[in-house]
Amino acid sequence: MLVNKYILPINSGSYDYLVIGKNIAKELGLKAQDRVMLQNPKYPEKQTLCFAEINEGKLKKNSIGIPLRTYEKVKKGLNLKFKIQKEGNIKSIDFIKEKLDGKKLKEPQFQAICKDIVDGNLNDAELAFFVAGCYTNKLSFKEAAGLTKAIADNGFKLKFRENQIVADKHCIGGVPGNRTTMIVIPIIASLGIKIPKTSSRSISSPSGTADTMEVLAEVDLKQEKLENLVKEYNGFIAWGGGCNLAASDDELIRIRRKLGLDPQGLVLASVMAKKYAAGATHVLIDIPYGKFAKVQSLHKAEELKEKFEKIAKELNVKIKVIITKGNQTIGRGIGPRLEAIDVLKVLNNEKDAPKDLLEKSLKLAGDILEMIGKAKLNEGYSIAKKQIENKKAYMKFQELIQAQGEKKLLQKAKHQYEIKAWKDGKIKEFNIKLISKIAKIAGSPKSANSGIEVLVSLKEKIKKNQTIYIIHSNQPNLLNQKIKQYIKDSILIS
Amino acid sequence: MLVNKYILPINSGSYDYLVIGKNIAKELGLKAQDRVMLQNPKYPEKQTLCFAEINEGKLKKNSIGIPLRTYEKVKKGLNLKFKIQKEGNIKSIDFIKEKLDGKKLKEPQFQAICKDIVDGNLNDAELAFFVAGCYTNKLSFKEAAGLTKAIADNGFKLKFRENQIVADKHCIGGVPGNRTTMIVIPIIASLGIKIPKTSSRSISSPSGTADTMEVLAEVDLKQEKLENLVKEYNGFIAWGGGCNLAASDDELIRIRRKLGLDPQGLVLASVMAKKYAAGATHVLIDIPYGKFAKVQSLHKAEELKEKFEKIAKELNVKIKVIITKGNQTIGRGIGPRLEAIDVLKVLNNEKDAPKDLLEKSLKLAGDILEMIGKAKLNEGYSIAKKQIENKKAYMKFQELIQAQGEKKLLQKAKHQYEIKAWKDGKIKEFNIKLISKIAKIAGSPKSANSGIEVLVSLKEKIKKNQTIYIIHSNQPNLLNQKIKQYIKDSILIS
Repeated sequence: MLVNKYILPINSGSYDYLVIGKNIAKELGLKAQDRVMLQNPKYPEKQTLCFAEINEGKLKKNSIGIPLRTYEKVKKGLNLKFKIQKEGNIKSIDFIKEKLDGKKLKEPQFQAICKDIVDGNLNDAELAFFVAGCYTNKLSFKEAAGLTKAIADNGFKLKFRENQIVADKHCIGGVPGNRTTMIVIPIIASLGIKIPKTSSRSISSPSGTADTMEVLAEVDLKQEKLENLVKEYNGFIAWGGGCNLAASDDELIRIRRKLGLDPQGLVLASVMAKKYAAGATHVLIDIPYGKFAKVQSLHKAEELKEKFEKIAKELNVKIKVIITKGNQTIGRGIGPRLEAIDVLKVLNNEKDAPKDLLEKSLKLAGDILEMIGKAKLNEGYSIAKKQIENKKAYMKFQELIQAQGEKKLLQKAKHQYEIKAWKDGKIKEFNIKLISKIAKIAGSPKSANSGIEVLVSLKEKIKKNQTIYIIHSNQPNLLNQKIKQYIKDSILIS
Repeated sequence: MLVNKYILPINSGSYDYLVIGKNIAKELGLKAQDRVMLQNPKYPEKQTLCFAEINEGKLKKNSIGIPLRTYEKVKKGLNLKFKIQKEGNIKSIDFIKEKLDGKKLKEPQFQAICKDIVDGNLNDAELAFFVAGCYTNKLSFKEAAGLTKAIADNGFKLKFRENQIVADKHCIGGVPGNRTTMIVIPIIASLGIKIPKTSSRSISSPSGTADTMEVLAEVDLKQEKLENLVKEYNGFIAWGGGCNLAASDDELIRIRRKLGLDPQGLVLASVMAKKYAAGATHVLIDIPYGKFAKVQSLHKAEELKEKFEKIAKELNVKIKVIITKGNQTIGRGIGPRLEAIDVLKVLNNEKDAPKDLLEKSLKLAGDILEMIGKAKLNEGYSIAKKQIENKKAYMKFQELIQAQGEKKLLQKAKHQYEIKAWKDGKIKEFNIKLISKIAKIAGSPKSANSGIEVLVSLKEKIKKNQTIYIIHSNQPNLLNQKIKQYIKDSILIS
C-alpha cells in the first residue's frame, strides 16, 4: 500500500524498521517484527527491507514513522508517498537456525548472514541466536575461515594486484605502553613494503594504538583516503572503526558484549577479518603472556598460537605467531600523549628513547622482513635497525603524519604526581592491570595528556624515595587513599 | 545528571529505553545499549531501568527522548526534569549466561529473569540468548516447573482459598471445529466447580476458542472482572492475552517465533504457566493425533503425554492426559460463527446438534468430574450428560454470556458455495490442514461469519453430487482453480 512518511527524530541503530499504525498493520496482516519492504514507487531501485514496529498510540492516517538511517536508503527527490508490503523470512534465518541446531555452515551461508547484518536485515534477537549458535556449537577452523572471508567481503576492502605482498601485524593486547605498531609500520613501509594498518581505540585499556596515533595525526579516515595512502606511502595507521572495515563484525561484537561471550571462532574471525580486508598476505601476531596480562600462561599462549596458525592455513595467509613476555609495561609512557612521545623518540633514534620498546619493535619488524623474504633468516633485525639509524623510518612516519593530517602535540597535563619507592629493594613484580587502572583514573585515554611515566623496570634495584612513577593528570588532588593503595599494589618491591 | 524529557511519538515495544544524545552519552560514559536508571527527582520512587540508545543526529541540548511506555513509569505531576545515571548489569544476565553455558537454573533464578522480562529490563538480544540456552541445553522437568511458576507469579494470577478445587482443560489444538471448551466449562461450572478458562485467539488456525466465544460475548476482560466472574459464576471463557496472564511468556513466544524454536521446556512451561496462574489444581489435557494434526503419531502423543505428566508432578498439580483421534474435523462448523452455532446447539440439546462434538465434550467433562472426585469411576460421563439434558449447562452458558457482555449474533456470510462429491464412494481421509486452509481463504477468523460447514464424516458412504461442504464467505467468486484443487485434495473418496 502507499503511505505517507513521517520522519522519526532518531536513528534506527543497527537495523531498519518502520513504525506502523495498528490500522495499516491489520490491513497488511502484520505482526510486530514482521519484515516489510519499503519502496520509493517512483524509483523502484530505492528500496529496503525493514522490521515492522506496531504503534499502539496515534499516528497520522496512513502514515508510517521512518528513522533517519532507513529514510536515507529510499529517499530521492521530493517523494512523499512510499510503498510498503509484507515480506517473508530471509534465507539467513534458516542458516542461523541450522547453526543453533549444531550443523556446520559453509562460506556462502556466512556470506548471506554477513550481508544481511550489514544491510540491517537482521535484528538483535536474530543476531543473538547466531552468536549463541557459534558459542554452543563451536565454529570449526574451516567455518571460522568462511566467516572471516564473509566479514571481510561485506565491508570495505583494500584491493591489490595479484601476488602483491601485503604485511600486517597484530598484538592481542593487554600490556600498557606496548605501542610497537607505530614503529614497525614506518620501518616496513620505508623499505617499500605495503603495510596498511587499521587499529582500534581503547576499549578497557588506557590507550589503543588509534588513540595514541590520534595525538599526532588524524586517524578517522575515509576509504578513498586510505586507498591513496597505501598507494602513495605504502601504509597508514588509521582507526579501523571509521571506514566500514568489518562492519558486520562490529555488530557481532556489540551483541557478544551483552553477555560477555567470546566464542573462539568468532574471536578468531574478528581478528583475521580485519587483516583479510586489509589485503594481508603475511601476518605477524604477538601474544604477550603474564600473570596480569590477557593471556595468563605460556600454555594458554601456545594454545592460542596454534589456533591462529590453523585459521591462517584455512585462509591461505602466511602467519607467524610469536609469544612474548607481558610481565611489565613497555616503554616509558602510558596514555596517548606520553606513548606518542616514546614512539617519536624511538623513531628519531634519540638517546633517551625507551630501549625495550625499540628492541621489541625491531624484533617484530625483523620477523616480518624474514617472513616475506625481504631478509634472510636472522638478518631481519639488523635491516630494521638500519632503518631507525638512517632515520628513514622516522621520515616515513613524518610522511604518514603529514598525509593523514598532522595534529599539534598537546601540552603536558596540568598536574604531575611523583610516586616514590616506599623502601629499598628490587622490583619483583608489575601488576600491569593495576597500572592500567591508575592511568585510567588519571584520565586516559579520554584526557589524552594524562597517564603514567614508569621510570623503573623489572628486577631493577631501587632505593627508598627514588621516583618510580610520575602520574600525569588534569585532576587536582588525585592521590586519595584508594589510588594510593592501587599504587602500592601495582609494583612489588622485595 | 538532570535532563529535559522529549516524548517520542512511539511505544518502546517490549522494553524501556531512552534516546540519549552523543554529548550526554559521553559525559555519562555510556555506550549503546548500556543500562541507565531514569528517575523523577521529586518522586524518587518513580524510576525505571532503561536501555540507552545513542542518538547520532540532533537532540535538543541536555534532552533525552522517552517513549510513551517508559514515560508512563516515571511521570507524576508536571515534572520537566528527570535524573539519569549509568547502571551496571542486572543479575538475570548472569543467569542467562549460566543457562547458555549448560548449567541448571533454579526457580529463584527463573523468577529474577521473568521479573526482568515483565519490567522491560531485558532486551531482545538478551531474551534470545535465554531462549537459545533453553533450546540447546534443554530444561529439565524441575527447571520447566521453576520457569512455569516464575511465569505465573510475574503476571496476573487468580487467587483461591487453600484446598479449593480449581479445574482447567487444555487441548494442544490442530483439529478444526474442536470447540469442546465452550461446552465443558458450562457443564463443570453448572455443577458448582470453579473452572476459569483463558483461551487463545487463532494463530494459524481458522478460529481459536477466544475467536469463537467472541461471536457471542466479550472476551477481552480486565483482571478485576475475571476475579468477579469466577467468584460469582464459577468460571469464564476469556481471551488470555487481554489480562496480563503470563506476560513474560508472551515475550518468550515472540522471540521464539523469530527462528521458529519450540524448546520442549519452554513449550511445557508456556502451557502450564497459564493453568498455574489460573489457580488450577486439576488439569485435563487433550492431545489429538493424526496424519494431518499437530501431533502426527500415537507414539509422539504418548511421549508428549509423559512430559505433561512429569512437569505436573513437579508442579504438584493433578493431571490427566487423554490421547484422542485427530483425523477429521469435529462438529459441523469451522470458523467463529459456525462453531458458535454448533456450541449453542449442543448446549441447548437440540436434535441436529453435532453428535461428535457432544460426545467428545461429555467425555472430557466426565474425566474432569472423575479426576476431582465429583463422580465415581465411569460415572462422570452420565453426570455431564445430565447437565446437558436438564439444560443447566445451557443456562450457565447464558449466564456467562450475559456477565461477560452479550454480543449480537452475526448474519450469515454473503455467499454460500456448495461443494459436491465428485464420485460415489466412501470418505477415506480428511486432510484437516487443507480444510483449515480453505476456511482461512474463505476469511476465517478475521471475517467471523466465514468458514466451512462439513456435512460428511470419516468412513461415511456418499453419492456423486451429494453436498459434502458448504463454504461460507463474504467474497464473491471464491472458487478459483487453486481453491478447487485444495478442496479436491482435502477429502479422499475411495
